[in-house]
Amino acid sequence: MGIVAVGSVAFDTVTSRYGTKERLLGGTAVYFGLAASYFTQVHVVGVVGDDFTREHEDVLRRHDIDISGVQRTAGKTFFWSGEYGANVNEAKTRATELNVFANFNPELPRDYRDSQFLFLGNIDPTLQGNVRRQMNGARLVAGDTMNYWINNTHPQLIETLKVMDLLIINDAEAKSLAVETNLPRAAQKVLALGPKALVMKHGEYGATIFFREGAFGIGHHPFRAPALPIEEVRDPTGAGDSFAGGFMGYIASQGELNREVLKRAMFYGSVMGSFAVERFGTERLQNLTREEIDARFQIFRELTHLE
Amino acid sequence: MGIVAVGSVAFDTVTSRYGTKERLLGGTAVYFGLAASYFTQVHVVGVVGDDFTREHEDVLRRHDIDISGVQRTAGKTFFWSGEYGANVNEAKTRATELNVFANFNPELPRDYRDSQFLFLGNIDPTLQGNVRRQMNGARLVAGDTMNYWINNTHPQLIETLKVMDLLIINDAEAKSLAVETNLPRAAQKVLALGPKALVMKHGEYGATIFFREGAFGIGHHPFRAPALPIEEVRDPTGAGDSFAGGFMGYIASQGELNREVLKRAMFYGSVMGSFAVERFGTERLQNLTREEIDARFQIFRELTHLE
Repeated sequence: MGIVAVGSVAFDTVTSRYGTKERLLGGTAVYFGLAASYFTQVHVVGVVGDDFTREHEDVLRRHDIDISGVQRTAGKTFFWSGEYGANVNEAKTRATELNVFANFNPELPRDYRDSQFLFLGNIDPTLQGNVRRQMNGARLVAGDTMNYWINNTHPQLIETLKVMDLLIINDAEAKSLAVETNLPRAAQKVLALGPKALVMKHGEYGATIFFREGAFGIGHHPFRAPALPIEEVRDPTGAGDSFAGGFMGYIASQGELNREVLKRAMFYGSVMGSFAVERFGTERLQNLTREEIDARFQIFRELTHLE
Repeated sequence: MGIVAVGSVAFDTVTSRYGTKERLLGGTAVYFGLAASYFTQVHVVGVVGDDFTREHEDVLRRHDIDISGVQRTAGKTFFWSGEYGANVNEAKTRATELNVFANFNPELPRDYRDSQFLFLGNIDPTLQGNVRRQMNGARLVAGDTMNYWINNTHPQLIETLKVMDLLIINDAEAKSLAVETNLPRAAQKVLALGPKALVMKHGEYGATIFFREGAFGIGHHPFRAPALPIEEVRDPTGAGDSFAGGFMGYIASQGELNREVLKRAMFYGSVMGSFAVERFGTERLQNLTREEIDARFQIFRELTHLE
């Protein structure tokens, strides 16, 4: 079974109050893949350059992540450099070098196409749509987007949203996409564009899933998972992708897609996001155990549960 | 038993996307008092001018709120006018006329002084301290403050915090008071100033209670209550005071002060805040039933509870 995840593979240079780390292995497909790997097998689709070494591959292979869909191209891997100031929810980008990612045209290996779960990372919505069509048998298709696409490729994004079951974006993106500042109303407007459900990520405040009436046959009451108050946020990069990885990974690991599974998936998403930010890059996500994950799941539960 | 609540009584003129309403009965003592009145008796300490009529008194009397501690002074009642734009968490103040509130010097009626619970609304910390000393037998003293006092009367505020059990402020105020942008670290710094617990209000994202180690004998793990996603936020004025009223009212209605009571109090606080914003002024808070409150409590519970 497993999940097919399409997205960037990158090197990130990150500065936060805890220092600077150079050329950390990152990107959507990597954060998502590592987070989801604790729940299910992940098949990655991406593109890398000559600077992506055997050592980098091994990080993914150790987590049983299938990288046969990662294209190798002459040139350099996508590079991003950014700085987090006092507000860790906002990065100040210093440099973005698309490199080989500029011509990324995701092509799914034949044996990926039977996967039942697909995650479309934050790339050009036209490419997202192309990948979607290569997996017509998928049971659940989730995707991400960002303000750049909302503003610059709006018609294409609208088309792609029609073939997504679940959109996972943050508050600012939802507000921008819906042209509406009230969160639940923004959610309704986004759901009217196509997705059956919308996961709205609130950063350090957690995330809420909103459902279209009748979606998944589970009613339309929203559900909210908290985020753990974390004292040492070393590197927020990849928190959203890690959320998506935990969320989708848990769903893919379950036989059924019902309300309880989606609720627990929201908690697992928050859990994986909380681990991701504790260390620079993917360090923490590379070295977890399922026991640690489930222990934090319990802490999250206790954080909001009444007797 | 009941609660003594000290704070402003005001008339508010409010503009939001839903229109403008003039001279609504408001102020901390009114919002807090109405919200708490569904759980316990409230004894208000405040000051009003000649424009505060019998009709206004009756709003409070209908909720069995004791207004014998409300001073009447020649002049006008505190008046505030503000506008909420796209971001309902931020009001743009158009006018603040302190009027009789400028010389407010709260004096507790003798029969108030046996109350076990005290809420010190957002006023000059020196005055908060004076009131605190008039109720040395209080079992639980909670208080609010704002950036104006944090910036302009810092030494006095620091003194007052030493005699508060529980501080109820929003994220921005906690960050400012702690000079720290990370929320849980800000919480620890605030707790080091004196309070046993800190309730940090996150606006539409709910609120978190942080405990000093050993406080109330209930451990130091934080607890978070969600806020309901509300589609029609007509008037956010008083949401924080209504939260405090629901929170303190529920606590005062219980025999014991344990972790479970505090957790449920956080939920009741969120519930009362959510009602407050649905209508202009105190309209919704004036016309609730305990059944409606408990029904919403259940909705909040389901919003975050796993099976």
